[in-house]
Amino acid sequence: MGEAHVAGTGLTEFGRTPDRTGRDLFAEAGLEAIDEAGIAPSEVEHLYFGNFMGELAEHQGHQGPLMAEAIGVDAPATRYETACASSGAAVLEAVRTVRAGDADVVVAGGMERMTNMGTADATEGLATAADDLYEIRAGMTFPGAYALMARAYFDEYGGSAEDLAHVAVKNHDNAVVNDHAQLQNEITVEDALDAPGVADPLGLYDSCPISDGASAVVVASEEYVDREGVDAPVAVTGAGQGGDKLALHDREYLARTPAAATAAEAAYEEAGIGPEDVDVAEVHDCFTIAEVLALESLGFYEPGEAIGAARRGETTRDGDLPVNLSGGLKAKGHPVGATGTGQIVSLTRLLRGDHPRSDAVPDARCGLAHNAGGTVASATVHLLEVRE
Amino acid sequence: MGEAHVAGTGLTEFGRTPDRTGRDLFAEAGLEAIDEAGIAPSEVEHLYFGNFMGELAEHQGHQGPLMAEAIGVDAPATRYETACASSGAAVLEAVRTVRAGDADVVVAGGMERMTNMGTADATEGLATAADDLYEIRAGMTFPGAYALMARAYFDEYGGSAEDLAHVAVKNHDNAVVNDHAQLQNEITVEDALDAPGVADPLGLYDSCPISDGASAVVVASEEYVDREGVDAPVAVTGAGQGGDKLALHDREYLARTPAAATAAEAAYEEAGIGPEDVDVAEVHDCFTIAEVLALESLGFYEPGEAIGAARRGETTRDGDLPVNLSGGLKAKGHPVGATGTGQIVSLTRLLRGDHPRSDAVPDARCGLAHNAGGTVASATVHLLEVRE
Repeated sequence: MGEAHVAGTGLTEFGRTPDRTGRDLFAEAGLEAIDEAGIAPSEVEHLYFGNFMGELAEHQGHQGPLMAEAIGVDAPATRYETACASSGAAVLEAVRTVRAGDADVVVAGGMERMTNMGTADATEGLATAADDLYEIRAGMTFPGAYALMARAYFDEYGGSAEDLAHVAVKNHDNAVVNDHAQLQNEITVEDALDAPGVADPLGLYDSCPISDGASAVVVASEEYVDREGVDAPVAVTGAGQGGDKLALHDREYLARTPAAATAAEAAYEEAGIGPEDVDVAEVHDCFTIAEVLALESLGFYEPGEAIGAARRGETTRDGDLPVNLSGGLKAKGHPVGATGTGQIVSLTRLLRGDHPRSDAVPDARCGLAHNAGGTVASATVHLLEVRE
Repeated sequence: MGEAHVAGTGLTEFGRTPDRTGRDLFAEAGLEAIDEAGIAPSEVEHLYFGNFMGELAEHQGHQGPLMAEAIGVDAPATRYETACASSGAAVLEAVRTVRAGDADVVVAGGMERMTNMGTADATEGLATAADDLYEIRAGMTFPGAYALMARAYFDEYGGSAEDLAHVAVKNHDNAVVNDHAQLQNEITVEDALDAPGVADPLGLYDSCPISDGASAVVVASEEYVDREGVDAPVAVTGAGQGGDKLALHDREYLARTPAAATAAEAAYEEAGIGPEDVDVAEVHDCFTIAEVLALESLGFYEPGEAIGAARRGETTRDGDLPVNLSGGLKAKGHPVGATGTGQIVSLTRLLRGDHPRSDAVPDARCGLAHNAGGTVASATVHLLEVRE
């Protein structure tokens, strides 16, 4: 099985752009990726596109062909939807196709419009990622669900709102220099603890914002990259997907996310490496507690130990394993369908040395991206390694 | 690359079941497929699930994990959405994964609820498969779009509403013995011509009904089938996908569907056969004109020649190439996300000899399934062959 290289990356600013259509947003990201790869759109053999709720946000399903046309690609196009992991799933399939030799060069990406919906409708739309019949109708919201997971974690392992505040402070701090990030303001632990509550123990700064944005990568085979002389030093060397029951009440644990563990184990096995080989990670911190749960599921920490990672400085940018140098969902923003590919874009740039936070990881050779859907009923993990 | 066998098939009745939830419908189809394959749900390595508008019909996105749980599968699950070709795209990826050796046994399927929405909301939901900004807001509906394609076809090649009526008569006639079909009533050419108009030249009997339903197949590697002694005589020997501009006004032709041609060419090449080798076909006849366009794109007829195929008796069940022996979308029904896999189920049963219309094709060794999205901006083609 050949290797799949990230041959080009594209990313819009994440933020509030309610007047930009989905096709407009994705055209910017997709064309940037194609341009960076130095290929012609006509060479692209498939578009793998992640979007979560276009039917609700824009009255627009069937976005695959629409987005292909937006970037000048005349090829089959498929939309993937696994809630907030939609474009993680799209990248996974793109990588699998290229590695299997079924295509030489494809585009994977994603887009979400949310701010045009207004906060109430966006919140209701996001709720379709949970079990409508047994969770949403009972009054659950995603902040509530993650608050429940945080409470369960505190009960089982200990931890406090202050520990979570350190995650928020770290990710905001990372985003300060990232012009693609929605929230570029520094915050303090006190700011986070004093902020309005959202769902106890989570407050405003524990929660990612509602965002618009798009992202894309060109994925190409090693043979194509060599033949065409594409400068693509970063390869996806491992990819995995995991699943769990959709509804929290059906699960064995509230304070663990086994779907992420399944995805990570598959990715590590494919790459032939382990968590100790990872130099930098972008993980799915839709809420601060989600970053903690992710770090444990991904094998970086034993259960109960990641809660203090940011506080102890282990995941800050001068720590042993910098996490969410892009700012994470927390500060970079979370345009749902664009998040998974956005993490791959950020990691690729961090590893290539052309990300605004690359100076924090000058010797990094391996990065991990973790994208999650719902309360981690879906998860994808990708491992990226420098190959030159 | 190994072969992918259809190891089990499952299908609900298509029709009006507004009180059955999506998970209920898919559980019936998925468990039937798993049971027929004689495997345990715990052996399934991935669920590939097609659904078009669950967010609108049930306020339910993120259906992959939900449907995996509904059939007792503890594995990653991905939702595919390419409008009416959603589960065609799901099957395609399932087949690719198994052929590439990335999995031994997976489930592909689909489900749609529509009748609970009411006709007006269902029609509005279906419209999200077209370009909202430039088609829908200008007043386009799908009957209107296909009427436009029919008019363009008549202008370019000739043909009449009576030719189209013969397609409807044929497909209704095929469905009479199919207990899974929504419309089991025979009609005459006069009935079709006298029926209320929908969008000239299309009338009521040129249009498929609005339907609820689910379908599923177990796809397994040749090695798995041999090792486990699964009775799975039918293999998917070719699979292809094509794409086109989403909006009609962006296309070169109104009276051709090149996305289906692209998909067919890829499938024929993979299987190493041609249209002359196909004994029986299930094609996407959301409107009667769509069957005509499909037969030409799939290589069975030259442009302009398929319009008379049903009238001449070439595609009736005693013809050379029986088309839509299941009744097609026209009479079997069209629960959007379930249609693509439903075609594979029907074809498999036709080839195995256990479909109510198998007696029409007792010697058939090769079948073709054609699934289309929107006005064929997306298309998938699968070739199934008897391997024992």
